[in-house]
Amino acid sequence: MPHDLTVAVVGATGAVGREMLKILEEREFPATKVRALASSRSAGSSLPFQNGELIVEELTEASFADIDLALFSAGGETSKKFAPIAAKAGCTVVDNSSAWRMDPEIPLVVPEVNPEALKTHKGIIANPNCSTIQMVVALKPLHDAARIKRVVVSTYQAVSGSGNKAIEELRKQVTQLFNMQEPEAKVYPHRIAFNCLPHLDAFLDNEYTKEEMKMVDETKKIMGDDSIRVTATTVRVPVFYGHSESINIETDLKLTSREARALLSQAPGVKVLDNPAENIYPMPINAAGEDETFVGRIREDESIDNGLNVWVVADNIRKGAALNTVQIAEVLIRENLLLS
Amino acid sequence: MPHDLTVAVVGATGAVGREMLKILEEREFPATKVRALASSRSAGSSLPFQNGELIVEELTEASFADIDLALFSAGGETSKKFAPIAAKAGCTVVDNSSAWRMDPEIPLVVPEVNPEALKTHKGIIANPNCSTIQMVVALKPLHDAARIKRVVVSTYQAVSGSGNKAIEELRKQVTQLFNMQEPEAKVYPHRIAFNCLPHLDAFLDNEYTKEEMKMVDETKKIMGDDSIRVTATTVRVPVFYGHSESINIETDLKLTSREARALLSQAPGVKVLDNPAENIYPMPINAAGEDETFVGRIREDESIDNGLNVWVVADNIRKGAALNTVQIAEVLIRENLLLS
Repeated sequence: MPHDLTVAVVGATGAVGREMLKILEEREFPATKVRALASSRSAGSSLPFQNGELIVEELTEASFADIDLALFSAGGETSKKFAPIAAKAGCTVVDNSSAWRMDPEIPLVVPEVNPEALKTHKGIIANPNCSTIQMVVALKPLHDAARIKRVVVSTYQAVSGSGNKAIEELRKQVTQLFNMQEPEAKVYPHRIAFNCLPHLDAFLDNEYTKEEMKMVDETKKIMGDDSIRVTATTVRVPVFYGHSESINIETDLKLTSREARALLSQAPGVKVLDNPAENIYPMPINAAGEDETFVGRIREDESIDNGLNVWVVADNIRKGAALNTVQIAEVLIRENLLLS
Repeated sequence: MPHDLTVAVVGATGAVGREMLKILEEREFPATKVRALASSRSAGSSLPFQNGELIVEELTEASFADIDLALFSAGGETSKKFAPIAAKAGCTVVDNSSAWRMDPEIPLVVPEVNPEALKTHKGIIANPNCSTIQMVVALKPLHDAARIKRVVVSTYQAVSGSGNKAIEELRKQVTQLFNMQEPEAKVYPHRIAFNCLPHLDAFLDNEYTKEEMKMVDETKKIMGDDSIRVTATTVRVPVFYGHSESINIETDLKLTSREARALLSQAPGVKVLDNPAENIYPMPINAAGEDETFVGRIREDESIDNGLNVWVVADNIRKGAALNTVQIAEVLIRENLLLS
């Protein structure tokens, strides 16, 4: 780090923004100054940080003059407007929204998978969708060893992926139901308590949701291989933290479950939990608060020649969002890739 | 119905047994007498039925002398022991356990799919596993039209599939968590509240669970086609009633999503709920208490030439167990296929 480094979290009061601050603190991120930015609505409020607190500042076009690195998690519209302003001011942006992910000029990065993509950035780097990040962390070692041809994924996604309001909605609906009251649904179109919603993000013309197509498109971009075919069904389940994924994989070369387990055990960011005899497998309640992507239920799929089934769980707010963003920032600093 | 018909529910006090009694009543099942049998532990207790109640009788080897038709849902061990005794006494058995399902001499029946298999029964008919029933109801019309080659299924299964104790366990764990108490796990090896467990039934040597292999093996037997390849990942979710399934289907002939929707709309026992623009898709909270198998999110899978994704939800206690058993009994009576 050649000089002082000021880091800002944009959208600091949201579920992901708060986790970003927590992770910057936990990992002793090499910032000389950390600032919290948010909309005018939150400006003036305070957030705990290290032994003190940060006063939230209003995000404006002038915010970025003294900021070297901004971690954005304030929604697509904010990113579309402010990320180019920040970059123009010499501030490098790592953006957690979907605004820039599929822009061919913008690197879309998971540090365990494609850190080299960072070298070509022009000021904005995109952080992938939560459900994509944990999937590619698990797919990468298998792809390197046996070339993945096709992926069929079904997700079990936690409400925290929709922010603080959704966490509160699940809690409130459960309380209402247990008190014989009619549960109110505001964040989701239907009740989520004790239910499954096969609907995340908006529906597209092809009958898939945006969330499903993110898993298809982002996977190809991050893995750097357009030949990987992906089909996804994304489902919200009544879990607070931790996304789970049932992933069926067809490879070009045969991998036994033992070989897949060995590859995954060596892979960066992966922890294999796969001992059925002892009832050990990944679960969202254990992944919550952890950094690793947990992989288990590794089995050969005998319905095709070269098939595997795996069960992948990670903390969607940490590896799926805040942690991956901070890890990207760490590579930028380590490799001296910041704009200024 | 040529003569008086006495019907017994064996295992009448369990979650499925109670639902069988409710369904016999709702459907005005043509029995002249209904009896409730259970273990000595429950004998003497009473269960509501029609305008009165049934006194639970102890199940013994002598129970079946005066019974024409017995609907069993008292676990595999009870079925293994008592179903042959009942059949020898001239009582036709429809068994909801897994004890007889894969016996080549025993028909395994979903009335919408393979009612003709009932013609060859020798006194015992097996009711399939809950997760299989709703899947084959949805697969059958697609198989008839386009021949299914391969199925990749991931399930989202309700706790009621594990009986009354599991329903109580989820309720209690949620209450404990909301009161800052440590949740107790007795029915399942881990907490189910706000969690997902990729583990139903015992693990087998091939690393799959019994539940997963039931979906593989029973599907082939019911569909009468060993060439259908199936791979399954079965997962318990914190839902009280209603199993959901994300099913990826590869067919021999191409089906557009529109064609699949038309076929499913005409299929017996199926109700299509598939209007994303209006947020209409199957959900467990709506399937609970209903008879139909609900199918939605019907999409072409563009990762293969002839692929479809569908989302299938049904009440696991009704269509997945009690209702299908009663429907089998109805066909036996209508077709005059009872032993006596």
